[in-house]
Amino acid sequence: MNRTENVRIESDLLGEREVPAEAYYGIQTLRALENFNITGVPISHFPNLPPALAMVKKACALANRDLGHLDADKADAICQACDEVIAGELHEHFVVDMIQGGAGTSTNMNANEVIANRALEILGYRRGDYEHLHPNIHVNMAQSTNDVYPTAVRLAMVLKHERLIEAASALQAAFAAKGLAFKGVLKMGRTQLQDAVPMSLGQEFNGFATTIGEDIARLKEMASLLREINLGGTAIGTGITAEEGYAEIAVSHLRAVSGEEVVLATDLVEATSDMGAFVIFSGMLRRIAVKISKICNDLRLMSSGPKCGLNEINLPEKQPGSSIMPGKVNPVIPEAVNQVAFTVIGNDVTVTMAAEAGQLQLNVMEPVIVYKILESVQYLAAALQSLRKDCVEGITANEEICRAYVDNSIGIVTALNPYIGYKNTTRIARQALKTGRRVADLVLEEKILTQEELDEVMKPENMLMPRRSKPSG
Amino acid sequence: MNRTENVRIESDLLGEREVPAEAYYGIQTLRALENFNITGVPISHFPNLPPALAMVKKACALANRDLGHLDADKADAICQACDEVIAGELHEHFVVDMIQGGAGTSTNMNANEVIANRALEILGYRRGDYEHLHPNIHVNMAQSTNDVYPTAVRLAMVLKHERLIEAASALQAAFAAKGLAFKGVLKMGRTQLQDAVPMSLGQEFNGFATTIGEDIARLKEMASLLREINLGGTAIGTGITAEEGYAEIAVSHLRAVSGEEVVLATDLVEATSDMGAFVIFSGMLRRIAVKISKICNDLRLMSSGPKCGLNEINLPEKQPGSSIMPGKVNPVIPEAVNQVAFTVIGNDVTVTMAAEAGQLQLNVMEPVIVYKILESVQYLAAALQSLRKDCVEGITANEEICRAYVDNSIGIVTALNPYIGYKNTTRIARQALKTGRRVADLVLEEKILTQEELDEVMKPENMLMPRRSKPSG
Amino acid sequence: MNRTENVRIESDLLGEREVPAEAYYGIQTLRALENFNITGVPISHFPNLPPALAMVKKACALANRDLGHLDADKADAICQACDEVIAGELHEHFVVDMIQGGAGTSTNMNANEVIANRALEILGYRRGDYEHLHPNIHVNMAQSTNDVYPTAVRLAMVLKHERLIEAASALQAAFAAKGLAFKGVLKMGRTQLQDAVPMSLGQEFNGFATTIGEDIARLKEMASLLREINLGGTAIGTGITAEEGYAEIAVSHLRAVSGEEVVLATDLVEATSDMGAFVIFSGMLRRIAVKISKICNDLRLMSSGPKCGLNEINLPEKQPGSSIMPGKVNPVIPEAVNQVAFTVIGNDVTVTMAAEAGQLQLNVMEPVIVYKILESVQYLAAALQSLRKDCVEGITANEEICRAYVDNSIGIVTALNPYIGYKNTTRIARQALKTGRRVADLVLEEKILTQEELDEVMKPENMLMPRRSKPSG
Amino acid sequence: MNRTENVRIESDLLGEREVPAEAYYGIQTLRALENFNITGVPISHFPNLPPALAMVKKACALANRDLGHLDADKADAICQACDEVIAGELHEHFVVDMIQGGAGTSTNMNANEVIANRALEILGYRRGDYEHLHPNIHVNMAQSTNDVYPTAVRLAMVLKHERLIEAASALQAAFAAKGLAFKGVLKMGRTQLQDAVPMSLGQEFNGFATTIGEDIARLKEMASLLREINLGGTAIGTGITAEEGYAEIAVSHLRAVSGEEVVLATDLVEATSDMGAFVIFSGMLRRIAVKISKICNDLRLMSSGPKCGLNEINLPEKQPGSSIMPGKVNPVIPEAVNQVAFTVIGNDVTVTMAAEAGQLQLNVMEPVIVYKILESVQYLAAALQSLRKDCVEGITANEEICRAYVDNSIGIVTALNPYIGYKNTTRIARQALKTGRRVADLVLEEKILTQEELDEVMKPENMLMPRRSKPSG
Repeated sequence: MNRTENVRIESDLLGEREVPAEAYYGIQTLRALENFNITGVPISHFPNLPPALAMVKKACALANRDLGHLDADKADAICQACDEVIAGELHEHFVVDMIQGGAGTSTNMNANEVIANRALEILGYRRGDYEHLHPNIHVNMAQSTNDVYPTAVRLAMVLKHERLIEAASALQAAFAAKGLAFKGVLKMGRTQLQDAVPMSLGQEFNGFATTIGEDIARLKEMASLLREINLGGTAIGTGITAEEGYAEIAVSHLRAVSGEEVVLATDLVEATSDMGAFVIFSGMLRRIAVKISKICNDLRLMSSGPKCGLNEINLPEKQPGSSIMPGKVNPVIPEAVNQVAFTVIGNDVTVTMAAEAGQLQLNVMEPVIVYKILESVQYLAAALQSLRKDCVEGITANEEICRAYVDNSIGIVTALNPYIGYKNTTRIARQALKTGRRVADLVLEEKILTQEELDEVMKPENMLMPRRSKPSG
Repeated sequence: MNRTENVRIESDLLGEREVPAEAYYGIQTLRALENFNITGVPISHFPNLPPALAMVKKACALANRDLGHLDADKADAICQACDEVIAGELHEHFVVDMIQGGAGTSTNMNANEVIANRALEILGYRRGDYEHLHPNIHVNMAQSTNDVYPTAVRLAMVLKHERLIEAASALQAAFAAKGLAFKGVLKMGRTQLQDAVPMSLGQEFNGFATTIGEDIARLKEMASLLREINLGGTAIGTGITAEEGYAEIAVSHLRAVSGEEVVLATDLVEATSDMGAFVIFSGMLRRIAVKISKICNDLRLMSSGPKCGLNEINLPEKQPGSSIMPGKVNPVIPEAVNQVAFTVIGNDVTVTMAAEAGQLQLNVMEPVIVYKILESVQYLAAALQSLRKDCVEGITANEEICRAYVDNSIGIVTALNPYIGYKNTTRIARQALKTGRRVADLVLEEKILTQEELDEVMKPENMLMPRRSKPSG
Repeated sequence: MNRTENVRIESDLLGEREVPAEAYYGIQTLRALENFNITGVPISHFPNLPPALAMVKKACALANRDLGHLDADKADAICQACDEVIAGELHEHFVVDMIQGGAGTSTNMNANEVIANRALEILGYRRGDYEHLHPNIHVNMAQSTNDVYPTAVRLAMVLKHERLIEAASALQAAFAAKGLAFKGVLKMGRTQLQDAVPMSLGQEFNGFATTIGEDIARLKEMASLLREINLGGTAIGTGITAEEGYAEIAVSHLRAVSGEEVVLATDLVEATSDMGAFVIFSGMLRRIAVKISKICNDLRLMSSGPKCGLNEINLPEKQPGSSIMPGKVNPVIPEAVNQVAFTVIGNDVTVTMAAEAGQLQLNVMEPVIVYKILESVQYLAAALQSLRKDCVEGITANEEICRAYVDNSIGIVTALNPYIGYKNTTRIARQALKTGRRVADLVLEEKILTQEELDEVMKPENMLMPRRSKPSG
Repeated sequence: MNRTENVRIESDLLGEREVPAEAYYGIQTLRALENFNITGVPISHFPNLPPALAMVKKACALANRDLGHLDADKADAICQACDEVIAGELHEHFVVDMIQGGAGTSTNMNANEVIANRALEILGYRRGDYEHLHPNIHVNMAQSTNDVYPTAVRLAMVLKHERLIEAASALQAAFAAKGLAFKGVLKMGRTQLQDAVPMSLGQEFNGFATTIGEDIARLKEMASLLREINLGGTAIGTGITAEEGYAEIAVSHLRAVSGEEVVLATDLVEATSDMGAFVIFSGMLRRIAVKISKICNDLRLMSSGPKCGLNEINLPEKQPGSSIMPGKVNPVIPEAVNQVAFTVIGNDVTVTMAAEAGQLQLNVMEPVIVYKILESVQYLAAALQSLRKDCVEGITANEEICRAYVDNSIGIVTALNPYIGYKNTTRIARQALKTGRRVADLVLEEKILTQEELDEVMKPENMLMPRRSKPSG
């Protein structure tokens, strides 16, 4: 065999090629590297992806061993190689681009080749000596890209989304803590950016906590849809080349190997081409993006000023805000989070179009779906973490400013509605606006209420929640 | 009072206006008609919307009566007026444009005014005699647009989506029926539009049934999120002007009035501005659109031809296909469904942007969210119904053509994999492609398998599902 | 012939059907009505669409007459019928749904049938007597839906967008007028919602005028792309059934008939399936939506308050703002415009997906592209008009509040930069923020500048534009 | 000064920090690195971005020198440092994340600091000795992030898009070459995936060339919009801190430095916050994506098979197509290009949302706009290049298969339309479909045409373009 020092020769359907001697990957990965040169983002960029692939490969090897198709020696070597990848090793050999043609074949073959070559070493052979253990024949036994790849990427998402859950939970807690801290800070609520009725700043921050909390719950539900897999369906879901019972055994092993409650889809033909779980999971990421963007918009608005804005709260100062305007400090963290949100929403459109583009027995656009979902999860997790530690935890309230808004506001007339009627309150409101006088003064002057009654109405506990008793009117 | 025969005079915060005498709506609706003149689509375009508004108004009237704030007479009249609207009457007076500023205030006031005027008639007064029963004071008692409108539109969606569920269920059944009918039609599966391995046409149609079935399940889950409402939160969720306990009573009445298991949100401040349920519900509609578009793409591809395409199935002929090409008949129904899918996906982006644009205590963009979701539901329901009755139910299979694909295909070599190995099969495949000869002939000629063995391998029951036993190799 | 009083019998490729006797449309339109029952929006909803179709039909009839294929009598009758449609008559017979399968065949046949039947009447025959003048043979002579429909819809867009240009121009003028009126109103500019440096309110409104003005220019450029048509390409652009020279003659007639400078595409095969002009035209509508949404966001922010917001400007009061909060008035017009913008952006995604879904020699999704573009144009024109007359023209400035922001602001230190240096200004800025004292006072107190010098620096003409001369420092 | 061996101390508005001694960037970049840790993509990832920043800095330094505000020594040192960056040096010090808060302040400060420190070295000082040459005072003189950053990123896009133009031009040429090569390959055109009328494969590929050619023209037009810049507008477009005439001088220098025909916007206040040029440029990238995706869909469809698809053309084999199905080769290059297209379309939505989110005098979301546009340009250029060299250039035609489709097709009856009428052709077409007989045989058998006449009609030159003369009928 013609082999120089730095390369080895491998062959496939299309002929022979030189592979770098030190590479654990082989000829098919090499071709993929040449064919797909677009994003510069290798599959190892997402640290759960190589382990997820290895978990699937291990589960299949165990199933093939159980069914008597794979020697114990080979199975053991494959499993040991997989364990190394699961432990975080060899990731630098998972090199193919996230955007690839072939519906993930290159990713699958990258895994098959790396695991085969590492297993060969374990068995005492050299890389490339595939007659002893072959990427396709042994590592990929009873498998097709079309069941292995969807299974592995689902697993990677499930594993990955836990970091997002953690970041979201921590952010929820931070908002809840501020909700408690700002419980006594009375401020004006605003609807349509117009003065509405009083509330506490604590209620507002608590609302942020609630809304993030709901997303955590929904995200977990959606993630469970990802746990439905098509392993054993092989090429198109009919299970060709696989033996009866193999799918169930492999899935059972995968549960054990991964620690995740994966289940076999009931209709493997459908499951092979269906992108539904991705579409709704991405839709859920989009929902988080929408909510967090709204929150950041609010934080930026509430902290606007200091002199020409609302100035209700202060965000931590993170960096000088201007190269020209001295003393300016900007809400840079929420601004970055907004941009992440827009990215996630754009990614979601990409996912949608890719999902729609599936044809017949397969969706060949799955790689970009996987890429964009994993990216969205990663960005969101980073953004939520940053928002918490670099912003929310350090927020302080300008209590006096908040209170002054309430005192000067006309909106408090609404609280008088049940006492003096809609018509009277409307009149007072117009008068206050026209004259610039305070509502309270007008009410007292017209003897509509006594000072005592007014004080009662204006008590925070009567304005911030439904009133305890009927008005006397 | 200056009143001509054809108009009556009404007044509000901004002054007096003439309202057509025959109108059940009043001055605020009139202003809204003038202010919002964009889509030409009135709220009555969605037949569940007026009843949903009336259900909420009735529930609130009952709660206010229970709490002693609303006379029994007035409450009864309001309830009777609401019942009429629920029964489908007076819808032509729900006239404001679906796209409106004011976060739904115009829709709420349209309902308040129509119900007030009808109740006035019931009580023996004339329309506009609001001193006896006032749209704001009595019909809208203890309510704000900001809790009534979100509650009513959620209810309208819940009610409306049932038609979609029905259409989806019927379509699922139609696909399943074809799945059964085409069980014995052997064809080639295709991945990446390239010949893959055999399957039955029945498996393919059954997959369509499965995928629609999953959507029905998911849709029901998502709809349940819409049943969480903020009724009683009033202006910003703090319940200002409402009495303690009112929210719970009103919601309880609404459950009875609507027959839907609505529940009160735990954090009403959050619930007032949160659009999360809409975002994920719209995301779910988008998922249906994605799936149904993929299915229609497949149907069009499978029925392509008749001579220069795949020609595996025949769609019912619905209309001449060309103004110039005689005899041409096109797959017009799936084509229309594709376009509905793209519309739903575009609507989903509109919903997303509108949801993100909420500020502080309210999302003022809610009307366009409601408009686009209701439209998507309506379009999807119509499209699924049409797809079923005008297309799927009449599909026939070209069984011989399907079978011929299998016989001539190279892809069947995959079934030989477990028997003669990946290397041998690859060689046979290349040879078949180069020479144009059939795989079966090559296998027999090379004496790789006997005719008997080959027949066994090629049995549908061995190609369309995992094999029962180990290959002898 | 079996004909009752109220119906006539017509037949086509698929058989016979009863058509309502009073209908100008015929059997193929009837089938389309039954097949496409989704949006409820008929093609006559867009008032330029029937005339655009008639213009194309007339131009083709004239070309066919010129080439000797169509009798003068028949040509004249067709032309007269077309003229009536162009003049706005018979529109109620253009009934097929905007979303339709068949790539516009139903729209084309609707036009062919209405024109044929009206021409028959003109010639003294009864509707349906197609042996004398046939929808396909004579009205559609040398035409295919695939060249007629794309040509007609482009023409409809070109005609329609002029209303948008007018609305945009009027809005631009309204903004410019306010720019002039508010020239002397000094206010603080804000970047990132933080106090920046002074500007005039007039500069701000003038910026709105400028940005709309740029869109008008771009829109005109993009519309010119729509004037490239494929008339004469017939079925797939090869011109089958048409005679050499026919395309040029027909286009020349169309220029005369429509008054628009339509030109024949150089590659008719490409032009038949290409949706590029629609994609970029829709992209341009989207750009208008983005800009106008940003402007409305600004208007809502600047008018926020009255007591708890920026309160720099007042929008005209259009309707009571709340069913519960007395005296509240909301910025309802900009809010509605925002929602239109989101709709246009969603429509643009629909257009994009539909354009991408074209296959081989045709894009069968063109009807939804046409629908959504025409809708976007219509909505935008209405929204811009409403924004101008119901909002912008009535805006007033709160001059004193604007000025007070400048006086109290720290941001004015930037103007001192060239005089006292970045370090000094930074120090002053921090001190002002910490102590709450005015920048001017600190500068004088520290004797950094004399009162005279300070006055010079703070002159509007020195703060609102580049300074005339070097600072003395 | 407290300075260890490996760090230097720098200070800013927020205090002191240790900066790595070897870093050319300074304290503000350091803070940005800590604050924005999301994408992992530094600004140097886009190789035109640091040079574009340096070009702007150089132009401003020259303007400041011309106006007498900057010493010749300092100006020279700054210019020399800029030239090094333009030449590709020091890029590894442009480290801040593409997604950042602060509207590009961190990018601007990163450039200011690197250039200042390099200039200090050139002047014989040590990095960090800012008393001799300061990032803000000297490098950023008369500049704001808000004019420098938008100018630089526009410049980077203009520079970058030229690679895309080249890739598109080469692809256009490759398609045109195939158009010529396949000129004589007769095939059936398909509309709605149904057999339509004949065309040549050359016409089809020529159409691809035409459509790409149009995009090149449009792209150049759109890019010219990016050449309108706001340099000199400083903080909010009012030119505060800049001297009269400075803007014009700086822009003039930038033209010379960059070699691009940049022009000063007429309304700098508008230009500072306006994202219109980005929106339409991104819309144009989206249009390319739509077209190229459609083309790839077609290539995949035309090459489908080999036995169970259309099989009209062969794409070059790039890699084994399956880990399980021997001999399968997939159209991996077009598949990857499709995915790039979906990514670009998603990015476009991100750009749209970010553009819409601008507020008042600035759009703080500009960094994500820049990121996504530069990414789209980069991806598209790579994809078009790959499509050309790895796919299009190697495409071969299956001429006999293509011809057989024509011979067996029913669609050719359309060509008989002008000779035997629509009614006759319709009858023949139905008969051919029902009996499976060839159209030609039926026509001859019924003596509708003689063999001679039929041959004339069926000549490619009569079917692939408008006929030369009238039919004799």
